[in-house]
Amino acid sequence: MVLTERTLLGPGPSNPYPEATAGLAAPLLGHLDPEFIKILERTCEGLRALWGTANPVTLPLSGTGSIGMEAAFANTVRPGDVAVIAVNGLFGVRMCEVASRYGAEVVRVDHTWGEPVDVERVMAAHPAPAVVAAVHAETSTGVRSDIAALGAAVRARWDDTLLLADCVTSLGGIEVAIDAWGVDVAYSGTQKCLGVAPGLAPFTFSERAWRRRVEAPPVWYLDLGLLGAYVRGGPGGRTYHHTAPVAMIASLDAALRRIEEEGMDAVAERHRAAGLRLQEGLQEMGLELFTAEGHRLPQLTSVRVPEGVDSAKVRHELLADYGIEIGAGVGEYASSVWRIGLMGHNARLDRAELVLTALRRVLGR
Amino acid sequence: MVLTERTLLGPGPSNPYPEATAGLAAPLLGHLDPEFIKILERTCEGLRALWGTANPVTLPLSGTGSIGMEAAFANTVRPGDVAVIAVNGLFGVRMCEVASRYGAEVVRVDHTWGEPVDVERVMAAHPAPAVVAAVHAETSTGVRSDIAALGAAVRARWDDTLLLADCVTSLGGIEVAIDAWGVDVAYSGTQKCLGVAPGLAPFTFSERAWRRRVEAPPVWYLDLGLLGAYVRGGPGGRTYHHTAPVAMIASLDAALRRIEEEGMDAVAERHRAAGLRLQEGLQEMGLELFTAEGHRLPQLTSVRVPEGVDSAKVRHELLADYGIEIGAGVGEYASSVWRIGLMGHNARLDRAELVLTALRRVLGR
Repeated sequence: MVLTERTLLGPGPSNPYPEATAGLAAPLLGHLDPEFIKILERTCEGLRALWGTANPVTLPLSGTGSIGMEAAFANTVRPGDVAVIAVNGLFGVRMCEVASRYGAEVVRVDHTWGEPVDVERVMAAHPAPAVVAAVHAETSTGVRSDIAALGAAVRARWDDTLLLADCVTSLGGIEVAIDAWGVDVAYSGTQKCLGVAPGLAPFTFSERAWRRRVEAPPVWYLDLGLLGAYVRGGPGGRTYHHTAPVAMIASLDAALRRIEEEGMDAVAERHRAAGLRLQEGLQEMGLELFTAEGHRLPQLTSVRVPEGVDSAKVRHELLADYGIEIGAGVGEYASSVWRIGLMGHNARLDRAELVLTALRRVLGR
Repeated sequence: MVLTERTLLGPGPSNPYPEATAGLAAPLLGHLDPEFIKILERTCEGLRALWGTANPVTLPLSGTGSIGMEAAFANTVRPGDVAVIAVNGLFGVRMCEVASRYGAEVVRVDHTWGEPVDVERVMAAHPAPAVVAAVHAETSTGVRSDIAALGAAVRARWDDTLLLADCVTSLGGIEVAIDAWGVDVAYSGTQKCLGVAPGLAPFTFSERAWRRRVEAPPVWYLDLGLLGAYVRGGPGGRTYHHTAPVAMIASLDAALRRIEEEGMDAVAERHRAAGLRLQEGLQEMGLELFTAEGHRLPQLTSVRVPEGVDSAKVRHELLADYGIEIGAGVGEYASSVWRIGLMGHNARLDRAELVLTALRRVLGR
């Protein structure tokens, strides 16, 4: 049997940290084993540190990143609630869809894709929304929005409005500071900057959100009231809810300890330096970056496909000849943009130079 | 760092097949990589073979076993629909809870725990239900119900009624024959007889269920209309829905190929022989089995805790001194029953003898 090995430089999954792979293959423990409970608690603690939060309800949800979005809306939105949602890419669009499923009256604030969220426009969209939601790092375009500024505005104006932030592509790559920013609900995915395989959605939920939470939401699997009894324990001890994905959690634990040992500042600097070199190199090659200057994520870069070049053919050649995966664009930009990720274990200068060299060869530049 | 290794003889997770662990740690592929799509298709094909179905909508859902139950009801139940649910253990109780969340009018048919489902009582519960649901292998008690008989009765009487079967603890351990039995919707978990870590819910959905499915169910993550476009493809090719848990799917693929190579008949015989020896051995030790004779699952055995014995202390000693995990009972039987699983890779005579010996030592019998 021949195993295929790839350098995963698309919008995720990225190649896991070696520590994460070792954690995945470690001897399996039961989900109620005292040794596993220690791992789970350490994982929740590690996530709190990365999120920058003291929220007791901070845990890895048992599904891929999208389940974090589902849990965020399922546990906060009641039919008829107004949800103001900033849309500047695919994941903003998806937030509108998911919020609607739970009966929200969605007030959608559309932006040009590739531009950051405009805080003033979001704040002006409705006088008293139940929920305001935005994407921190848009995976569809590689733009960073200023959640700190949005949080400051929301907290200055409303006491009860909850702020939801999609951090799928930011956590573990750039600074996230949930409590300092005034964010109530945030979720991420393991397969981007956290450097773990896809399968878990790190999640955090503030005390304000807990007080306003939906009792018995439609989706039993993501009912935080029930999940909390397993993760936090209660008067009767830990209550079994569903079998935790123990191997994935052990893998996330290993990655979090690695990030802690390297230091989140050093990890962020690694992402910054690699992304900067990639973006410089692409421009040196004569390519045009898609995302607004000053708002580009280092971990995910969108670049325009040059006129006359077959986007899919280039991606295919990179994969077939160099074993490098990069991503296509999304929606109307599907064939006019490439997305190149340098996330987690791949946030390194060698990976930046590798993809630049391979792209130069394939494009003949 | 010291890794803890356990022999997992509780109600799941079980120790994975070595092939499954190797699959988990193999180089990670992107979820749209042609090589991964081959693995996904092979996995769906392998699941069809094990389920005994030709259903095109057969796939591993991205969550643990419970997400299968959630998807089953989310995609079939509309508010006001009558759901007749056979309850003979915890997972029947949970089905009632989940169905209610989606607005079902639940007609609950209660049985004594440890007894199999009574087909006549279920059929007499309502003249024309939208859904009839039962658990094939009750994880809370270790009883097997005759889904073939229930399916024959449902199919003989109703054209449109959907039959849902919980196969979390049966698939990969005993015979399952979805199409022959007339089952419309079934789900399982990877961490029991399939011999894979927890994290995926194998799922199958008949053409009859597809015609009657709920369009845009409350839970976006489990919307089969959207999931189908990724797994089956469509006129526009495969549509991205959410990032598949690629490492877990590669692991399931490896386990399915191992089961195929050993042969499902041989795997079932291995479960039968190991379970029979365990049940004999427990009785030789003077212990009393909990579940009705003639309806005992080989892969999961419930045994009564002898009078005067501290159930938790025994489980603790088995874990601390022998590294063996067995399960407590559930609900009112929490401290009066133990559950011992011999599932997947653990369905072996050596594991049966090991747990018998260790239990004999700890009990001083």
